[in-house]
Amino acid sequence: MKVAGTIDEIRSAVAEARLAGSRTVGLVPTMGALHEGHYSLIDAAREGCDFVVVSIFVNPAQFGPGEDLQTYPRPLEADLAGCRARGADAAFVPQVEEMYPPGAVTTVHVAGLTARLCGANRPGHFDGVCTVVAKLFNIVAPDVAYFGAKDYQQAVVVRRMVRDLHMPVRIEVCPTVREADGLAVSSRNVRLSAEERAEAVALAESLRLAQKMVEAGARGAAEVLEAMRRQLDERAPCGQVDYVQVVDSESLQDVEEITASVVAAVAVRFASVRLIDNMLLTPPRSPKA
Amino acid sequence: MKVAGTIDEIRSAVAEARLAGSRTVGLVPTMGALHEGHYSLIDAAREGCDFVVVSIFVNPAQFGPGEDLQTYPRPLEADLAGCRARGADAAFVPQVEEMYPPGAVTTVHVAGLTARLCGANRPGHFDGVCTVVAKLFNIVAPDVAYFGAKDYQQAVVVRRMVRDLHMPVRIEVCPTVREADGLAVSSRNVRLSAEERAEAVALAESLRLAQKMVEAGARGAAEVLEAMRRQLDERAPCGQVDYVQVVDSESLQDVEEITASVVAAVAVRFASVRLIDNMLLTPPRSPKA
Repeated sequence: MKVAGTIDEIRSAVAEARLAGSRTVGLVPTMGALHEGHYSLIDAAREGCDFVVVSIFVNPAQFGPGEDLQTYPRPLEADLAGCRARGADAAFVPQVEEMYPPGAVTTVHVAGLTARLCGANRPGHFDGVCTVVAKLFNIVAPDVAYFGAKDYQQAVVVRRMVRDLHMPVRIEVCPTVREADGLAVSSRNVRLSAEERAEAVALAESLRLAQKMVEAGARGAAEVLEAMRRQLDERAPCGQVDYVQVVDSESLQDVEEITASVVAAVAVRFASVRLIDNMLLTPPRSPKA
Repeated sequence: MKVAGTIDEIRSAVAEARLAGSRTVGLVPTMGALHEGHYSLIDAAREGCDFVVVSIFVNPAQFGPGEDLQTYPRPLEADLAGCRARGADAAFVPQVEEMYPPGAVTTVHVAGLTARLCGANRPGHFDGVCTVVAKLFNIVAPDVAYFGAKDYQQAVVVRRMVRDLHMPVRIEVCPTVREADGLAVSSRNVRLSAEERAEAVALAESLRLAQKMVEAGARGAAEVLEAMRRQLDERAPCGQVDYVQVVDSESLQDVEEITASVVAAVAVRFASVRLIDNMLLTPPRSPKA
Protein backbone atom coordinates (compact mmCIF):
# COMPACT_ATOMS: atom_id res chain seq x y z
CA MET A 1 0.00 0.00 0.00
CA LYS A 2 1.26 3.43 -1.00
CA VAL A 3 1.29 6.02 1.79
CA ALA A 4 1.04 9.49 0.24
CA GLY A 5 1.82 12.47 2.45
CA THR A 6 1.31 15.16 -0.18
CA ILE A 7 -1.23 16.10 -2.82
CA ASP A 8 1.31 15.50 -5.58
CA GLU A 9 2.05 12.02 -4.26
CA ILE A 10 -1.56 10.88 -4.13
CA ARG A 11 -2.29 12.39 -7.54
CA SER A 12 0.69 10.51 -8.98
CA ALA A 13 -0.40 7.27 -7.34
CA VAL A 14 -3.92 7.59 -8.77
CA ALA A 15 -2.62 8.60 -12.21
CA GLU A 16 -0.25 5.62 -12.26
CA ALA A 17 -3.05 3.28 -11.26
CA ARG A 18 -5.27 4.60 -14.05
CA LEU A 19 -2.46 4.25 -16.58
CA ALA A 20 -1.92 0.70 -15.36
CA GLY A 21 -5.54 -0.13 -16.10
CA SER A 22 -7.57 0.76 -13.02
CA ARG A 23 -10.91 1.89 -14.42
CA THR A 24 -12.58 2.91 -11.17
CA VAL A 25 -11.09 4.70 -8.19
CA GLY A 26 -12.86 4.56 -4.83
CA LEU A 27 -12.28 7.04 -2.01
CA VAL A 28 -13.03 6.46 1.65
CA PRO A 29 -12.65 9.85 3.38
CA THR A 30 -11.90 9.45 7.11
CA MET A 31 -10.54 11.38 10.06
CA GLY A 32 -8.58 8.29 11.12
CA ALA A 33 -9.08 6.44 14.42
CA LEU A 34 -10.42 3.75 12.15
CA HIS A 35 -12.98 1.25 13.44
CA GLU A 36 -15.24 -1.42 11.97
CA GLY A 37 -17.48 1.27 10.49
CA HIS A 38 -14.61 2.65 8.42
CA TYR A 39 -13.40 -0.84 7.56
CA SER A 40 -16.82 -1.71 6.19
CA LEU A 41 -16.46 1.31 3.87
CA ILE A 42 -13.03 0.11 2.74
CA ASP A 43 -14.54 -3.34 2.13
CA ALA A 44 -17.30 -1.78 0.00
CA ALA A 45 -14.74 0.24 -1.97
CA ARG A 46 -12.56 -2.87 -2.42
CA GLU A 47 -15.61 -4.71 -3.73
CA GLY A 48 -16.73 -1.90 -6.04
CA CYS A 49 -13.54 -0.29 -7.36
CA ASP A 50 -10.22 -1.23 -8.94
CA PHE A 51 -8.14 1.20 -6.87
CA VAL A 52 -9.00 2.14 -3.29
CA VAL A 53 -7.78 5.31 -1.57
CA VAL A 54 -8.36 5.93 2.14
CA SER A 55 -7.80 9.52 3.23
CA ILE A 56 -6.87 10.12 6.86
CA PHE A 57 -7.18 13.77 7.82
CA VAL A 58 -8.49 15.33 11.02
CA ASN A 59 -10.18 18.31 9.39
CA PRO A 60 -9.92 21.38 11.63
CA ALA A 61 -12.63 23.25 9.69
CA GLN A 62 -15.37 20.89 10.85
CA PHE A 63 -14.63 21.35 14.55
CA GLY A 64 -16.20 24.27 16.39
CA PRO A 65 -14.60 26.28 19.21
CA GLY A 66 -14.60 24.14 22.35
CA GLU A 67 -15.02 20.92 20.39
CA ASP A 68 -12.55 18.04 20.56
CA LEU A 69 -10.12 18.90 17.74
CA GLN A 70 -7.08 18.75 20.06
CA THR A 71 -8.06 15.51 21.75
CA TYR A 72 -9.41 13.73 18.68
CA PRO A 73 -7.54 10.40 18.56
CA ARG A 74 -4.75 10.06 15.93
CA PRO A 75 -3.44 6.48 16.03
CA LEU A 76 -1.75 6.75 12.63
CA GLU A 77 0.31 3.54 12.67
CA ALA A 78 -2.67 1.42 13.68
CA ASP A 79 -4.80 3.13 11.04
CA LEU A 80 -2.28 2.43 8.29
CA ALA A 81 -1.99 -1.19 9.41
CA GLY A 82 -5.77 -1.45 9.27
CA CYS A 83 -5.94 0.04 5.76
CA ARG A 84 -3.27 -2.39 4.64
CA ALA A 85 -5.06 -5.35 6.20
CA ARG A 86 -8.34 -4.44 4.50
CA GLY A 87 -6.67 -4.18 1.12
CA ALA A 88 -6.53 -0.43 0.47
CA ASP A 89 -4.19 0.51 -2.37
CA ALA A 90 -3.22 3.93 -1.06
CA ALA A 91 -3.55 6.01 2.09
CA PHE A 92 -3.58 9.79 1.73
CA VAL A 93 -2.34 11.47 4.92
CA PRO A 94 -1.94 15.19 4.20
CA GLN A 95 -0.79 17.95 6.50
CA VAL A 96 -3.20 20.71 7.51
CA GLU A 97 -0.99 23.33 5.82
CA GLU A 98 -1.29 21.58 2.50
CA MET A 99 -5.05 21.03 2.61
CA TYR A 100 -5.55 24.62 3.85
CA PRO A 101 -2.72 26.70 2.38
CA PRO A 102 -2.05 30.06 4.08
CA GLY A 103 -4.76 32.51 3.03
CA ALA A 104 -7.30 29.81 2.13
CA VAL A 105 -10.70 31.51 2.31
CA THR A 106 -12.94 29.36 0.11
CA THR A 107 -15.85 27.40 1.54
CA VAL A 108 -18.63 25.26 0.10
CA HIS A 109 -22.01 25.80 1.68
CA VAL A 110 -25.16 23.70 1.35
CA ALA A 111 -27.96 25.97 2.52
CA GLY A 112 -30.96 24.79 4.52
CA LEU A 113 -29.98 21.14 5.00
CA THR A 114 -27.01 22.17 7.12
CA ALA A 115 -28.97 24.36 9.52
CA ARG A 116 -30.88 21.41 10.97
CA LEU A 117 -30.12 18.47 13.30
CA CYS A 118 -26.37 18.49 14.05
CA GLY A 119 -25.97 21.73 12.08
CA ALA A 120 -28.15 23.62 14.56
CA ASN A 121 -25.78 22.72 17.40
CA ARG A 122 -22.57 22.86 15.38
CA PRO A 123 -22.61 26.06 13.31
CA GLY A 124 -20.13 25.88 10.42
CA HIS A 125 -19.58 22.15 10.91
CA PHE A 126 -21.06 21.12 7.56
CA ASP A 127 -19.34 23.96 5.69
CA GLY A 128 -16.13 22.41 7.02
CA VAL A 129 -17.21 18.95 5.91
CA CYS A 130 -18.32 20.05 2.43
CA THR A 131 -15.20 22.13 1.91
CA VAL A 132 -12.80 19.33 2.80
CA VAL A 133 -14.77 16.75 0.84
CA ALA A 134 -14.72 19.04 -2.23
CA LYS A 135 -10.94 19.38 -1.82
CA LEU A 136 -10.50 15.60 -1.50
CA PHE A 137 -12.65 14.98 -4.58
CA ASN A 138 -10.61 17.50 -6.57
CA ILE A 139 -7.35 15.93 -5.41
CA VAL A 140 -8.18 12.23 -5.74
CA ALA A 141 -10.81 12.45 -8.54
CA PRO A 142 -12.57 9.29 -7.39
CA ASP A 143 -15.37 7.64 -9.36
CA VAL A 144 -17.09 6.57 -6.15
CA ALA A 145 -16.84 7.87 -2.57
CA TYR A 146 -18.04 5.95 0.48
CA PHE A 147 -19.75 7.41 3.54
CA GLY A 148 -21.32 5.78 6.58
CA ALA A 149 -25.04 5.96 7.29
CA LYS A 150 -24.29 6.74 10.96
CA ASP A 151 -23.46 10.30 9.89
CA TYR A 152 -26.78 10.48 8.10
CA GLN A 153 -27.00 14.25 7.72
CA GLN A 154 -23.44 14.33 6.40
CA ALA A 155 -24.34 11.81 3.71
CA VAL A 156 -27.44 13.79 2.68
CA VAL A 157 -25.49 17.06 2.61
CA VAL A 158 -22.58 15.60 0.61
CA ARG A 159 -25.00 14.00 -1.86
CA ARG A 160 -26.71 17.35 -2.35
CA MET A 161 -23.39 19.13 -2.85
CA VAL A 162 -22.34 16.57 -5.45
CA ARG A 163 -25.65 16.83 -7.28
CA ASP A 164 -25.81 20.64 -7.17
CA LEU A 165 -22.21 21.20 -8.28
CA HIS A 166 -22.33 18.36 -10.85
CA MET A 167 -19.31 16.70 -9.30
CA PRO A 168 -18.41 13.63 -11.34
CA VAL A 169 -18.49 11.18 -8.43
CA ARG A 170 -21.04 8.67 -7.14
CA ILE A 171 -21.79 8.68 -3.40
CA GLU A 172 -22.33 5.31 -1.74
CA VAL A 173 -23.81 5.29 1.75
CA CYS A 174 -23.04 2.11 3.70
CA PRO A 175 -25.02 0.74 6.67
CA THR A 176 -24.11 1.70 10.22
CA VAL A 177 -21.93 -0.89 11.95
CA ARG A 178 -22.97 -1.64 15.53
CA GLU A 179 -21.49 -3.18 18.66
CA ALA A 180 -23.06 -6.38 19.97
CA ASP A 181 -25.46 -4.39 22.17
CA GLY A 182 -26.49 -2.08 19.32
CA LEU A 183 -24.32 0.99 20.00
CA ALA A 184 -23.19 2.50 16.69
CA VAL A 185 -19.42 2.21 16.44
CA SER A 186 -17.66 5.57 16.61
CA SER A 187 -14.14 6.85 17.14
CA ARG A 188 -15.48 8.70 20.15
CA ASN A 189 -16.87 5.63 21.96
CA VAL A 190 -13.50 4.87 23.57
CA ARG A 191 -13.67 8.14 25.47
CA LEU A 192 -16.83 7.10 27.35
CA SER A 193 -16.55 6.01 30.99
CA ALA A 194 -17.80 2.52 31.78
CA GLU A 195 -21.05 3.96 33.13
CA GLU A 196 -21.52 6.21 30.11
CA ARG A 197 -20.73 3.32 27.77
CA ALA A 198 -23.48 1.29 29.42
CA GLU A 199 -25.94 4.15 29.06
CA ALA A 200 -24.91 4.96 25.48
CA VAL A 201 -26.81 1.97 24.16
CA ALA A 202 -29.95 3.99 24.89
CA LEU A 203 -29.48 5.90 21.61
CA ALA A 204 -29.91 2.75 19.52
CA GLU A 205 -32.65 1.47 21.84
CA SER A 206 -34.67 4.64 21.40
CA LEU A 207 -34.39 4.28 17.62
CA ARG A 208 -35.49 0.64 17.75
CA LEU A 209 -38.42 1.65 19.94
CA ALA A 210 -39.41 4.21 17.27
CA GLN A 211 -39.17 1.57 14.55
CA LYS A 212 -41.30 -0.85 16.58
CA MET A 213 -43.95 1.80 17.18
CA VAL A 214 -44.09 2.57 13.46
CA GLU A 215 -44.29 -1.13 12.62
CA ALA A 216 -47.16 -1.42 15.11
CA GLY A 217 -49.03 1.37 13.35
CA ALA A 218 -47.93 4.61 15.02
CA ARG A 219 -48.00 7.49 12.53
CA GLY A 220 -47.80 10.59 14.69
CA ALA A 221 -44.26 11.92 15.00
CA ALA A 222 -45.05 13.65 18.32
CA GLU A 223 -46.10 10.38 19.93
CA VAL A 224 -42.97 8.59 18.70
CA LEU A 225 -40.67 11.41 19.77
CA GLU A 226 -42.18 11.54 23.24
CA ALA A 227 -41.61 7.81 23.73
CA MET A 228 -38.02 8.13 22.48
CA ARG A 229 -37.29 11.04 24.79
CA ARG A 230 -38.80 9.25 27.76
CA GLN A 231 -36.68 6.20 27.10
CA LEU A 232 -33.49 8.27 26.70
CA ASP A 233 -34.23 10.08 29.99
CA GLU A 234 -34.74 6.77 31.78
CA ARG A 235 -31.91 4.73 30.29
CA ALA A 236 -29.27 7.45 29.91
CA PRO A 237 -29.54 9.73 32.96
CA CYS A 238 -25.90 10.88 32.52
CA GLY A 239 -26.63 11.94 28.95
CA GLN A 240 -27.82 15.35 27.87
CA VAL A 241 -30.04 15.17 24.82
CA ASP A 242 -29.01 17.56 22.01
CA TYR A 243 -31.93 16.57 19.81
CA VAL A 244 -34.41 13.83 19.09
CA GLN A 245 -36.09 14.35 15.73
CA VAL A 246 -38.12 12.61 13.08
CA VAL A 247 -37.34 14.14 9.70
CA ASP A 248 -37.88 13.63 5.99
CA SER A 249 -35.05 11.46 4.69
CA GLU A 250 -34.13 13.92 1.89
CA SER A 251 -35.12 17.43 3.03
CA LEU A 252 -34.33 16.78 6.72
CA GLN A 253 -37.44 18.82 7.58
CA ASP A 254 -39.42 17.74 10.62
CA VAL A 255 -42.44 15.64 9.72
CA GLU A 256 -45.68 15.50 11.70
CA GLU A 257 -46.98 12.31 10.22
CA ILE A 258 -44.91 9.24 9.40
CA THR A 259 -46.41 8.40 6.02
CA ALA A 260 -43.37 7.82 3.82
CA SER A 261 -39.79 6.92 4.67
CA VAL A 262 -38.54 9.18 7.39
CA VAL A 263 -35.47 9.12 9.56
CA ALA A 264 -35.36 9.22 13.34
CA ALA A 265 -32.18 10.90 14.56
CA VAL A 266 -30.72 11.43 18.02
CA ALA A 267 -27.74 13.25 19.48
CA VAL A 268 -26.73 12.89 23.13
CA ARG A 269 -23.82 14.35 25.06
CA PHE A 270 -21.98 12.39 27.75
CA ALA A 271 -19.68 14.96 29.37
CA SER A 272 -17.43 16.04 26.45
CA VAL A 273 -18.40 13.12 24.21
CA ARG A 274 -21.24 13.75 21.78
CA LEU A 275 -22.80 10.68 20.20
CA ILE A 276 -25.22 10.53 17.27
CA ASP A 277 -27.29 7.77 15.72
CA ASN A 278 -30.22 7.42 13.34
CA MET A 279 -32.54 4.90 11.78
CA LEU A 280 -34.77 4.85 8.72
CA LEU A 281 -38.38 4.37 9.86
CA THR A 282 -40.36 2.56 7.19
CA PRO A 283 -44.07 2.08 7.74
CA PRO A 284 -45.38 -1.33 6.58
CA ARG A 285 -46.57 -1.37 2.96
CA SER A 286 -50.27 -1.74 3.89
CA PRO A 287 -50.87 0.81 6.62
CA LYS A 288 -53.66 0.23 9.12
CA ALA A 289 -55.25 3.62 8.60
CA MET B 1 -18.26 22.30 -34.04
CA LYS B 2 -20.40 20.28 -31.67
CA VAL B 3 -23.23 22.20 -29.99
CA ALA B 4 -24.08 20.51 -26.68
CA GLY B 5 -27.32 21.49 -24.99
CA THR B 6 -27.03 19.15 -22.03
CA ILE B 7 -24.43 18.13 -19.46
CA ASP B 8 -24.40 14.58 -20.80
CA GLU B 9 -23.76 15.82 -24.33
CA ILE B 10 -20.79 18.01 -23.44
CA ARG B 11 -19.34 15.30 -21.19
CA SER B 12 -19.59 12.82 -24.06
CA ALA B 13 -18.01 15.26 -26.49
CA VAL B 14 -15.06 15.86 -24.15
CA ALA B 15 -14.68 12.15 -23.37
CA GLU B 16 -14.68 11.31 -27.10
CA ALA B 17 -12.09 13.99 -27.78
CA ARG B 18 -9.84 12.60 -25.04
CA LEU B 19 -10.24 9.07 -26.37
CA ALA B 20 -9.37 10.36 -29.83
CA GLY B 21 -6.11 11.74 -28.50
CA SER B 22 -6.82 15.27 -27.23
CA ARG B 23 -4.44 15.66 -24.33
CA THR B 24 -5.53 19.11 -23.16
CA VAL B 25 -9.02 20.55 -22.93
CA GLY B 26 -9.50 24.31 -22.71
CA LEU B 27 -12.65 25.98 -21.43
CA VAL B 28 -13.75 29.54 -22.17
CA PRO B 29 -16.69 30.25 -19.84
CA THR B 30 -18.93 33.05 -21.19
CA MET B 31 -22.39 34.51 -20.80
CA GLY B 32 -22.65 34.84 -24.59
CA ALA B 33 -23.03 38.14 -26.47
CA LEU B 34 -19.52 37.37 -27.61
CA HIS B 35 -17.17 40.16 -28.61
CA GLU B 36 -13.48 40.53 -29.43
CA GLY B 37 -12.62 40.06 -25.75
CA HIS B 38 -14.20 36.61 -25.74
CA TYR B 39 -12.73 35.79 -29.13
CA SER B 40 -9.25 36.58 -27.83
CA LEU B 41 -9.87 33.99 -25.09
CA ILE B 42 -10.96 31.42 -27.68
CA ASP B 43 -7.82 32.22 -29.68
CA ALA B 44 -5.68 31.67 -26.57
CA ALA B 45 -7.43 28.37 -25.87
CA ARG B 46 -7.03 27.33 -29.52
CA GLU B 47 -3.33 28.11 -29.23
CA GLY B 48 -2.86 26.33 -25.90
CA CYS B 49 -5.17 23.31 -26.00
CA ASP B 50 -6.09 20.38 -28.22
CA PHE B 51 -9.84 20.65 -27.64
CA VAL B 52 -11.62 23.95 -27.02
CA VAL B 53 -15.01 24.25 -25.29
CA VAL B 54 -16.87 27.56 -25.11
CA SER B 55 -19.71 27.63 -22.59
CA ILE B 56 -22.52 30.11 -23.21
CA PHE B 57 -24.73 30.51 -20.16
CA VAL B 58 -26.33 33.63 -18.72
CA ASN B 59 -25.91 32.71 -15.07
CA PRO B 60 -28.86 33.97 -13.02
CA ALA B 61 -27.01 33.48 -9.73
CA GLN B 62 -24.53 36.25 -10.46
CA PHE B 63 -27.20 38.90 -11.11
CA GLY B 64 -28.64 40.80 -8.17
CA PRO B 65 -32.23 42.00 -7.82
CA GLY B 66 -32.75 44.98 -10.15
CA GLU B 67 -29.74 44.05 -12.29
CA ASP B 68 -29.99 43.33 -16.02
CA LEU B 69 -30.61 39.55 -16.06
CA GLN B 70 -33.77 39.89 -18.17
CA THR B 71 -32.32 42.34 -20.67
CA TYR B 72 -28.87 40.75 -20.92
CA PRO B 73 -28.31 40.19 -24.68
CA ARG B 74 -28.64 36.59 -25.93
CA PRO B 75 -27.69 36.52 -29.64
CA LEU B 76 -27.19 32.75 -29.70
CA GLU B 77 -26.92 32.16 -33.44
CA ALA B 78 -24.32 34.90 -33.87
CA ASP B 79 -22.42 33.57 -30.86
CA LEU B 80 -22.32 30.05 -32.28
CA ALA B 81 -21.18 31.38 -35.65
CA GLY B 82 -18.43 33.31 -33.89
CA CYS B 83 -17.27 30.24 -31.95
CA ARG B 84 -17.22 28.25 -35.16
CA ALA B 85 -15.27 30.96 -36.99
CA ARG B 86 -12.65 31.13 -34.24
CA GLY B 87 -12.16 27.37 -34.28
CA ALA B 88 -13.88 26.19 -31.11
CA ASP B 89 -14.49 22.44 -31.04
CA ALA B 90 -17.63 22.50 -28.91
CA ALA B 91 -20.12 24.99 -27.54
CA PHE B 92 -21.92 24.13 -24.30
CA VAL B 93 -25.27 25.89 -24.09
CA PRO B 94 -27.13 24.50 -21.07
CA GLN B 95 -30.56 25.40 -19.74
CA VAL B 96 -30.89 27.10 -16.35
CA GLU B 97 -32.88 24.12 -15.01
CA GLU B 98 -30.03 21.76 -15.75
CA MET B 99 -27.28 23.91 -14.26
CA TYR B 100 -29.46 24.68 -11.22
CA PRO B 101 -31.70 21.64 -10.71
CA PRO B 102 -34.79 22.20 -8.52
CA GLY B 103 -33.72 22.36 -4.90
CA ALA B 104 -30.14 23.36 -5.68
CA VAL B 105 -28.83 25.04 -2.53
CA THR B 106 -25.05 24.71 -2.77
CA THR B 107 -22.80 27.73 -3.16
CA VAL B 108 -19.05 28.31 -3.26
CA HIS B 109 -17.87 31.33 -1.31
CA VAL B 110 -14.47 33.02 -1.39
CA ALA B 111 -14.40 35.15 1.76
CA GLY B 112 -12.78 38.56 1.97
CA LEU B 113 -11.78 39.01 -1.67
CA THR B 114 -15.43 39.05 -2.72
CA ALA B 115 -16.51 41.77 -0.28
CA ARG B 116 -14.43 44.43 -2.02
CA LEU B 117 -14.60 46.43 -5.29
CA CYS B 118 -17.54 45.07 -7.34
CA GLY B 119 -18.48 42.72 -4.49
CA ALA B 120 -19.29 45.65 -2.22
CA ASN B 121 -21.88 46.94 -4.70
CA ARG B 122 -23.09 43.55 -5.90
CA PRO B 123 -23.62 41.35 -2.82
CA GLY B 124 -23.73 37.66 -3.77
CA HIS B 125 -22.38 38.34 -7.27
CA PHE B 126 -19.11 36.46 -6.77
CA ASP B 127 -20.79 33.58 -4.95
CA GLY B 128 -22.83 33.22 -8.14
CA VAL B 129 -19.70 33.41 -10.29
CA CYS B 130 -17.74 30.89 -8.19
CA THR B 131 -20.65 28.49 -7.96
CA VAL B 132 -21.26 28.40 -11.71
CA VAL B 133 -17.55 28.20 -12.51
CA ALA B 134 -17.20 25.26 -10.09
CA LYS B 135 -20.13 23.56 -11.84
CA LEU B 136 -18.61 24.18 -15.28
CA PHE B 137 -15.25 22.83 -14.15
CA ASN B 138 -16.91 19.70 -12.75
CA ILE B 139 -18.88 19.20 -15.97
CA VAL B 140 -16.20 19.92 -18.58
CA ALA B 141 -13.10 18.93 -16.55
CA PRO B 142 -10.84 21.32 -18.46
CA ASP B 143 -7.07 21.38 -18.06
CA VAL B 144 -7.02 25.14 -18.61
CA ALA B 145 -9.72 27.79 -18.28
CA TYR B 146 -9.49 31.27 -19.78
CA PHE B 147 -10.69 34.50 -18.21
CA GLY B 148 -10.36 38.12 -19.28
CA ALA B 149 -8.32 40.66 -17.35
CA LYS B 150 -11.15 43.20 -17.73
CA ASP B 151 -13.01 41.33 -14.99
CA TYR B 152 -9.94 41.54 -12.80
CA GLN B 153 -11.57 40.77 -9.47
CA GLN B 154 -13.33 37.78 -11.01
CA ALA B 155 -10.00 36.39 -12.20
CA VAL B 156 -8.42 36.85 -8.76
CA VAL B 157 -11.41 35.27 -7.01
CA VAL B 158 -11.58 32.29 -9.39
CA ARG B 159 -7.82 31.74 -9.04
CA ARG B 160 -8.15 31.72 -5.26
CA MET B 161 -11.08 29.29 -5.41
CA VAL B 162 -9.09 26.95 -7.65
CA ARG B 163 -6.05 27.12 -5.40
CA ASP B 164 -8.01 26.72 -2.14
CA LEU B 165 -10.15 23.82 -3.35
CA HIS B 166 -7.25 22.16 -5.21
CA MET B 167 -9.22 22.12 -8.46
CA PRO B 168 -7.13 20.38 -11.14
CA VAL B 169 -7.31 23.26 -13.63
CA ARG B 170 -4.97 26.05 -14.62
CA ILE B 171 -6.38 29.58 -14.88
CA GLU B 172 -5.11 31.76 -17.72
CA VAL B 173 -5.91 35.47 -17.57
CA CYS B 174 -5.79 37.20 -20.97
CA PRO B 175 -5.27 40.93 -21.62
CA THR B 176 -8.24 43.28 -21.91
CA VAL B 177 -9.25 43.96 -25.50
CA ARG B 178 -10.03 47.63 -26.20
CA GLU B 179 -11.84 49.67 -28.84
CA ALA B 180 -9.77 52.10 -30.93
CA ASP B 181 -10.37 54.90 -28.40
CA GLY B 182 -9.41 52.71 -25.45
CA LEU B 183 -12.82 51.66 -24.09
CA ALA B 184 -12.64 48.07 -22.85
CA VAL B 185 -14.90 45.91 -25.00
CA SER B 186 -17.94 44.63 -23.11
CA SER B 187 -21.27 43.02 -23.98
CA ARG B 188 -22.90 45.98 -22.27
CA ASN B 189 -21.28 48.68 -24.44
CA VAL B 190 -24.01 48.34 -27.09
CA ARG B 191 -26.59 49.52 -24.58
CA LEU B 192 -24.91 52.92 -24.16
CA SER B 193 -26.43 55.98 -25.85
CA ALA B 194 -24.15 57.87 -28.28
CA GLU B 195 -23.43 60.47 -25.61
CA GLU B 196 -22.72 57.83 -22.95
CA ARG B 197 -20.53 55.90 -25.37
CA ALA B 198 -18.45 59.05 -25.94
CA GLU B 199 -18.11 59.60 -22.20
CA ALA B 200 -17.37 55.93 -21.44
CA VAL B 201 -13.84 56.30 -22.72
CA ALA B 202 -13.17 58.25 -19.53
CA LEU B 203 -12.78 54.98 -17.61
CA ALA B 204 -9.76 53.95 -19.67
CA GLU B 205 -8.46 57.52 -19.71
CA SER B 206 -8.53 57.73 -15.92
CA LEU B 207 -6.55 54.49 -15.72
CA ARG B 208 -3.97 55.73 -18.21
CA LEU B 209 -3.69 58.94 -16.23
CA ALA B 210 -2.96 56.87 -13.13
CA GLN B 211 -0.34 54.87 -14.98
CA LYS B 212 1.31 58.07 -16.26
CA MET B 213 1.39 59.56 -12.76
CA VAL B 214 3.03 56.41 -11.40
CA GLU B 215 5.55 56.39 -14.23
CA ALA B 216 6.30 60.01 -13.42
CA GLY B 217 7.02 59.12 -9.82
CA ALA B 218 3.71 59.43 -7.96
CA ARG B 219 3.57 56.94 -5.09
CA GLY B 220 0.66 58.15 -2.96
CA ALA B 221 -2.58 56.33 -3.75
CA ALA B 222 -4.68 59.26 -2.47
CA GLU B 223 -3.10 61.67 -4.93
CA VAL B 224 -3.63 59.27 -7.84
CA LEU B 225 -7.21 58.51 -6.85
CA GLU B 226 -8.07 62.18 -6.57
CA ALA B 227 -6.76 62.85 -10.06
CA MET B 228 -8.67 59.86 -11.45
CA ARG B 229 -11.90 60.98 -9.81
CA ARG B 230 -11.48 64.53 -11.04
CA GLN B 231 -10.97 63.32 -14.56
CA LEU B 232 -13.99 60.99 -14.42
CA ASP B 233 -16.14 63.84 -13.11
CA GLU B 234 -14.99 66.13 -15.90
CA ARG B 235 -15.03 63.71 -18.82
CA ALA B 236 -18.04 61.57 -17.87
CA PRO B 237 -20.65 63.92 -16.35
CA CYS B 238 -23.47 61.45 -17.20
CA GLY B 239 -21.67 58.68 -15.31
CA GLN B 240 -22.12 57.88 -11.66
CA VAL B 241 -18.93 56.53 -10.12
CA ASP B 242 -19.40 53.27 -8.18
CA TYR B 243 -15.79 53.13 -7.10
CA VAL B 244 -12.29 54.26 -7.98
CA GLN B 245 -9.71 52.23 -6.07
CA VAL B 246 -6.05 51.37 -6.01
CA VAL B 247 -5.60 47.89 -4.55
CA ASP B 248 -3.04 45.16 -4.04
CA SER B 249 -3.14 42.90 -7.09
CA GLU B 250 -3.58 39.71 -5.03
CA SER B 251 -5.35 40.63 -1.78
CA LEU B 252 -7.45 43.42 -3.38
CA GLN B 253 -6.88 45.46 -0.21
CA ASP B 254 -6.58 49.22 -0.62
CA VAL B 255 -2.98 50.39 -0.65
CA GLU B 256 -1.77 53.78 0.56
CA GLU B 257 1.54 53.71 -1.20
CA ILE B 258 2.21 52.42 -4.69
CA THR B 259 5.42 50.51 -4.04
CA ALA B 260 4.84 47.20 -5.72
CA SER B 261 2.47 46.13 -8.48
CA VAL B 262 -0.99 47.36 -7.68
CA VAL B 263 -4.17 47.56 -9.70
CA ALA B 264 -6.26 50.65 -10.33
CA ALA B 265 -9.92 49.72 -10.79
CA VAL B 266 -12.98 51.77 -11.70
CA ALA B 267 -16.70 51.14 -11.99
CA VAL B 268 -19.07 53.72 -13.43
CA ARG B 269 -22.81 53.57 -14.07
CA PHE B 270 -24.41 55.16 -17.13
CA ALA B 271 -28.16 54.93 -16.47
CA SER B 272 -28.72 51.12 -16.21
CA VAL B 273 -25.37 50.20 -17.75
CA ARG B 274 -22.52 49.57 -15.33
CA LEU B 275 -19.03 49.53 -16.82
CA ILE B 276 -15.81 48.40 -15.18
CA ASP B 277 -12.17 48.61 -16.14
CA ASN B 278 -8.77 48.22 -14.50
CA MET B 279 -5.07 48.53 -15.14
CA LEU B 280 -1.94 47.18 -13.49
CA LEU B 281 0.15 50.11 -12.22
CA THR B 282 3.81 49.20 -12.26
CA PRO B 283 6.27 51.70 -10.85
CA PRO B 284 9.54 51.98 -12.81
CA ARG B 285 12.26 49.58 -11.62
CA SER B 286 14.44 52.40 -10.19
CA PRO B 287 12.07 54.63 -8.24
CA LYS B 288 12.94 58.29 -7.78
CA ALA B 289 12.58 58.27 -4.01
